[in-house]
Amino acid sequence: MAFVAFIGLGQMGAPMAANLIKKGHQLCVYDVNRQAVEVLTGLGAKGADSPSAAASGAEFVITMLPNGDLVEQVLFGDGGVNESLSKQALVIDMSTIHPLHSDGLCQKMSQQGFSYMDAPVGRTSDHAIAGTLLILAGGTEAQVEKARPVLMCMGSELVNCSGPGMGIRVKLINNYMSIALNALSAEAAVMCEALGLPLDVAIQVMSNTPAGKGHFTTSWPNKVLRGDLSPAFMIDLAHKDLGIALDVANQLHVPMPLGAAAREVYSQARSAGRGRQDWTAILAHVRKISGRSEA
Amino acid sequence: MAFVAFIGLGQMGAPMAANLIKKGHQLCVYDVNRQAVEVLTGLGAKGADSPSAAASGAEFVITMLPNGDLVEQVLFGDGGVNESLSKQALVIDMSTIHPLHSDGLCQKMSQQGFSYMDAPVGRTSDHAIAGTLLILAGGTEAQVEKARPVLMCMGSELVNCSGPGMGIRVKLINNYMSIALNALSAEAAVMCEALGLPLDVAIQVMSNTPAGKGHFTTSWPNKVLRGDLSPAFMIDLAHKDLGIALDVANQLHVPMPLGAAAREVYSQARSAGRGRQDWTAILAHVRKISGRSEA
Amino acid sequence: MAFVAFIGLGQMGAPMAANLIKKGHQLCVYDVNRQAVEVLTGLGAKGADSPSAAASGAEFVITMLPNGDLVEQVLFGDGGVNESLSKQALVIDMSTIHPLHSDGLCQKMSQQGFSYMDAPVGRTSDHAIAGTLLILAGGTEAQVEKARPVLMCMGSELVNCSGPGMGIRVKLINNYMSIALNALSAEAAVMCEALGLPLDVAIQVMSNTPAGKGHFTTSWPNKVLRGDLSPAFMIDLAHKDLGIALDVANQLHVPMPLGAAAREVYSQARSAGRGRQDWTAILAHVRKISGRSEA
Amino acid sequence: MAFVAFIGLGQMGAPMAANLIKKGHQLCVYDVNRQAVEVLTGLGAKGADSPSAAASGAEFVITMLPNGDLVEQVLFGDGGVNESLSKQALVIDMSTIHPLHSDGLCQKMSQQGFSYMDAPVGRTSDHAIAGTLLILAGGTEAQVEKARPVLMCMGSELVNCSGPGMGIRVKLINNYMSIALNALSAEAAVMCEALGLPLDVAIQVMSNTPAGKGHFTTSWPNKVLRGDLSPAFMIDLAHKDLGIALDVANQLHVPMPLGAAAREVYSQARSAGRGRQDWTAILAHVRKISGRSEA
Repeated sequence: MAFVAFIGLGQMGAPMAANLIKKGHQLCVYDVNRQAVEVLTGLGAKGADSPSAAASGAEFVITMLPNGDLVEQVLFGDGGVNESLSKQALVIDMSTIHPLHSDGLCQKMSQQGFSYMDAPVGRTSDHAIAGTLLILAGGTEAQVEKARPVLMCMGSELVNCSGPGMGIRVKLINNYMSIALNALSAEAAVMCEALGLPLDVAIQVMSNTPAGKGHFTTSWPNKVLRGDLSPAFMIDLAHKDLGIALDVANQLHVPMPLGAAAREVYSQARSAGRGRQDWTAILAHVRKISGRSEA
Repeated sequence: MAFVAFIGLGQMGAPMAANLIKKGHQLCVYDVNRQAVEVLTGLGAKGADSPSAAASGAEFVITMLPNGDLVEQVLFGDGGVNESLSKQALVIDMSTIHPLHSDGLCQKMSQQGFSYMDAPVGRTSDHAIAGTLLILAGGTEAQVEKARPVLMCMGSELVNCSGPGMGIRVKLINNYMSIALNALSAEAAVMCEALGLPLDVAIQVMSNTPAGKGHFTTSWPNKVLRGDLSPAFMIDLAHKDLGIALDVANQLHVPMPLGAAAREVYSQARSAGRGRQDWTAILAHVRKISGRSEA
Repeated sequence: MAFVAFIGLGQMGAPMAANLIKKGHQLCVYDVNRQAVEVLTGLGAKGADSPSAAASGAEFVITMLPNGDLVEQVLFGDGGVNESLSKQALVIDMSTIHPLHSDGLCQKMSQQGFSYMDAPVGRTSDHAIAGTLLILAGGTEAQVEKARPVLMCMGSELVNCSGPGMGIRVKLINNYMSIALNALSAEAAVMCEALGLPLDVAIQVMSNTPAGKGHFTTSWPNKVLRGDLSPAFMIDLAHKDLGIALDVANQLHVPMPLGAAAREVYSQARSAGRGRQDWTAILAHVRKISGRSEA
Repeated sequence: MAFVAFIGLGQMGAPMAANLIKKGHQLCVYDVNRQAVEVLTGLGAKGADSPSAAASGAEFVITMLPNGDLVEQVLFGDGGVNESLSKQALVIDMSTIHPLHSDGLCQKMSQQGFSYMDAPVGRTSDHAIAGTLLILAGGTEAQVEKARPVLMCMGSELVNCSGPGMGIRVKLINNYMSIALNALSAEAAVMCEALGLPLDVAIQVMSNTPAGKGHFTTSWPNKVLRGDLSPAFMIDLAHKDLGIALDVANQLHVPMPLGAAAREVYSQARSAGRGRQDWTAILAHVRKISGRSEA
C-alpha cells in the first residue's frame, strides 16, 4: 500500500485512479474539474485543492494531463507539486507530451533534487477501466522497479523502455506509425472497393506479407539492418509498382496522398543512385536525407 | 504432365520455368533474349522463335513479362500467341501489370474464344528459385482448378482470389501497401534514431499494437467495418499526436512526407465534422472523398 | 494560301480549323466524329475519310488530338498520314502530349524522311475561337519560319521555343506550374477566409512580393541563379514560417497538403546543411536530390 | 519627433532602430545582447536594462523579436513593458508571430487598458538597412494613422491591412505563398533542366500566364470569384496534365512532392463531381473540404 497523489482525472485518468484505489492504495487526487474529484472521493480518495496539496506526503505523484504545458504548470506553477514534494517521492508523468518537453521537465526536476520518470500508456479508455493498459516505462532501472507495483495496478503489461525519456519516445513513434498507417490503410482499402476486390481476400494475402506484417521483422532484418542492400526486390520495381497503383487510383478517383508522397521518396532514392538496390534501402536513403550516417 | 509454353525468361520467369521442367512438364519457351532461351533448353525445354511457335500445341501458356504492353504484344502482335493457340488451352498471365489493362486483355481473349486468367506472384526471386512463390490466382473456379497443379510447381501457396482479374488486383493492393509502408517505416525508424531510442524497443512495443499489426485485423473490425464510429481513440487526438510527431521530426531535421500528408488527411476529416469520431472513421472519410458511399 | 490538312476537330481543333479557313487557307479535315467534320465542310473545308486522305497533297498537316497514342495512330496507323504524306510537307502537332512521346514521333517521322514539329497552344477555347491563342513553337528555325504564317492564323502570339521538342516541353512546364499553383493558391485563399482576412488585402500585398510575382524574376536572378547562396532570407526562417502557417491551418481545419509537402522539402534542405543559406537555395537542393549538379 | 522604445535589435531590428534615429526620433533601446545595445547607443540611442526601463516615458514601443513567447515575455514578464507603459503610448509589434498568439496579446493588452497593434514587415534585411521595408499595418484606423509617421521611417510602403491582427495575417499568408511557391518553382525549374529546356524560354512564356502571374488576378476574378464554374479549362484536363508532368518527372528522376500532392487534390475534386468544372473550382473545392461554404 502506497500514498499516491493523482493529478488529472479525465477520460483516462479517472479510471486509472479508481483502479489504484481498488488495489488498496491511498489516493489524494486533484483536478481543475471539481466534479471529477468528487467521483473519486466517492470511491475513497481524498480530494485536494491544488497539486501541491495533493503531493504533500505522497510517495508517488502521477500526472495524466492533456499536454505538456499543463504538466509543467502542475509541477512548477503556483500551488504546484514541487512546493510540497518529498525528495524521496517519485513523480510519474503518464501524459502523452512532446518528448523534448518531457526531457526538459525531467532535467528541471532533477536539478531541484526530485525524481521524475515518464510512463505514458497504450490502448484505450476501455483498457483504462479494465486495468489492462500497456505501460511504457521510461526511467532508470531503480525508478522503473520502484514504480512497477503501482503501475501494474493500472495495466496488464509494462515495457521497460530502457531509460529516462524512452517511454514517451516509444509512445510517440508508436502513435506516429499507427496513426499514419491508419490513413494509408484507408487508401488501400478504398482502392480495393473501387477495384471491386473483396477486402477480406486482400487481407488474407497481406497477412502473410510485409503489407500486413510490417517491415521491421520481415524484409529489414536480413537486408538493410545488416547493411546488405543487394536486391531481393529492387527500388526501381517498387517505384514502378507505386506508379501503376497511383495511375489506377487516379483513374478510379481514389485520392492517395500518402502513396503519392511515397512515390516521390522512391523517385528521390532512384535519383540518389539506389534504383538497383533492395527496397529496404529506403531506410538508408531516409537516414541520409536526414543528415545521418546511412550505414 | 502437361505441355506448357513459357514466355518471358527473366529473373523471375527463368527459375519458374526451370521448376516446371523439374516437376516433369514438357516446356516450350520463348524470350527475346536468346541466351535466356538457351539456359532453359539446356535443362530440357524446347526453344521457340516466336510466341506463336511456343504456344502451338500447348495446354498452358504462361506469360511472365515486365509490363502490359509486352503481354499484349506477345498475345496479339505479329507472331503472337493467338495465331496458334488452341481453344482448349489456358493462358495464364503471371506478370504484374495494370489491372485495367489485364481486364482488357482478358476480355479480348475471351471475345476470340480463348481462355485467359491472371496469376501474379508474391515474394522474391529467391522464392522463384526455391519454388516457394505465393500465387495469386484470378480466374473462374474452373480455370483456377485447372491451373492449380501447374501453378503449384512454382509456388508453395496459392490463394484463389475469387474471380477473373482479382489476382492482379490483390497484387496491386498488396504491393501498394507494402511499398508505401516501407517508406513510412523508414520515417519512423529514422525518428527513433534521431530521438536516441533503440529500434528494438520500439519494435517490441509496436509488435502488439496496430503500428505493427496493421489496422485491418485490429482496430477496424469492431469499429468502422461494423459502422460503429463511437470513439475508442478520437480523430482529434490522432491529429494532435501526428502534429507533435511532425513537430519533433522537424526539430530533429527528419523529413516525414508521408506523415505530413497523413496529418492533412486527418485535418480534413476534422473539417468534415469527424473530430470526435473514432480514428477508424478515417476509412469512412476516405470512402466519402473518393465519391463512394461512406457507410 | 496553303493546302492544310487538319486532323482533330474537338473543342480546340474545330475553331482553330475555322480560323484557318477564314484566313483563306484551303482545308481538308478529318475527325472520327463525322458531325465535327460536317461543321467544317459547312465552312468551306473538304472532308476526308481518313488521315491519309486528308494529308494527300497537303503542304501542312496539323494534328490537334487528346493524347499521344492518338497522334501516333493518326500518323502511323492504318490509313495514317504517312501513307500519303509528301516529303515536302510539314507536320505540326499542336496536341498536348508526353514530351518524350513527342520526341519519339519526331524521330520516327524524321527517319522516314518527313518533317515534323511540335506547336502546342496556350490559353483557352475562347481564345481558340477568337484566334488569339499563344503558340509554343518547337522546331528548327526553318520549320518555325515556314509554319509561322499558318500558325499565326490561329494565335496572336508565337514563341519560338528554340528547338525541336521545346514547344511541348514549355507547355508541360507551364501547365505544371499553373495547375499546381492553382491548388496552392486555393490553400492560401481559404486560409485567408479562415483567418477573417479580406482576400483583396492579401492580394494587394502579394502583388508586390514573390508570392504574387513568382521567384523566377524576383528572388532568384541575383541569388541562386548566380550561385550566390548568402542569405537574404534564410532557409531556417522559411521553414519556421511554414511551420507557423501549417500550425495555424491545422488549428483552423484548413487542409494544406502542398504546404505540408513544402515544409518537408525545407526540412530536408536543413538536414542537408542548408539552414543558413538563402531560401533560393531550395533550387540548388532540388537539383541535388534529382541527381544533378547543384551548382 | 517622438520618444520610441525599441526592443529587439537583431538582424532586422538593429537597422530599423538606426533609421528611426536618423529620422530624428529619440530612442531608448533594449536587447538581451548587450553588444547590440551598444551599437545603437553609439548612434545616439539610450540603452535600457529591461523592457520596462525602455518603455518608461515612451510614446511608441516597438518590438521586433524572433517569436511570440519572447514578445509575451517582453510585454508581461518580470521587468516587462506593461510595468511602466503609459496608457497613452502605442505598442507596435513588428515581429512575425503566430496570428492567434498576436490576437491574444492584443486582447490582453487591451484588457489592461493599453493600445497595441501589429505591423510586421516584408522584404529583407537589405531593405531594413535602406529603410525601404514593406510595412503591413494591422490596427484601428486611429492606431495606423498615429503610427504611420514612425513606421514610414523604416519603410517605403505601408499597407493598411484593414483592422487589428490583419497585418500579421497578411504576413502569414504572404510568407506561406512565397515560401511554398519557391519550392514549387524549384520543382518546375529542375524539370526544365532535366528536359533540356532553357529556363529563360520557360520564364518568357510563364510571364504571360497564370504560371508566372498567379491566379488571383488572372484566372479567378471572372470565374470562381464570381461563382462561375463553367469550364474555360476543365479540372479533368488539369488533372490529366499534372499526371503527364508527374509521369515525365518520375521518368527523369525529378522528385516533385508538391506536384504529387496537387494531383491528389485534383483527383479528389474529380471524386467530388467537379471534373467538368473550371479549374478555378479548385478554390470552391478547398473551401468545402475545409468545412466552409463553397459558394
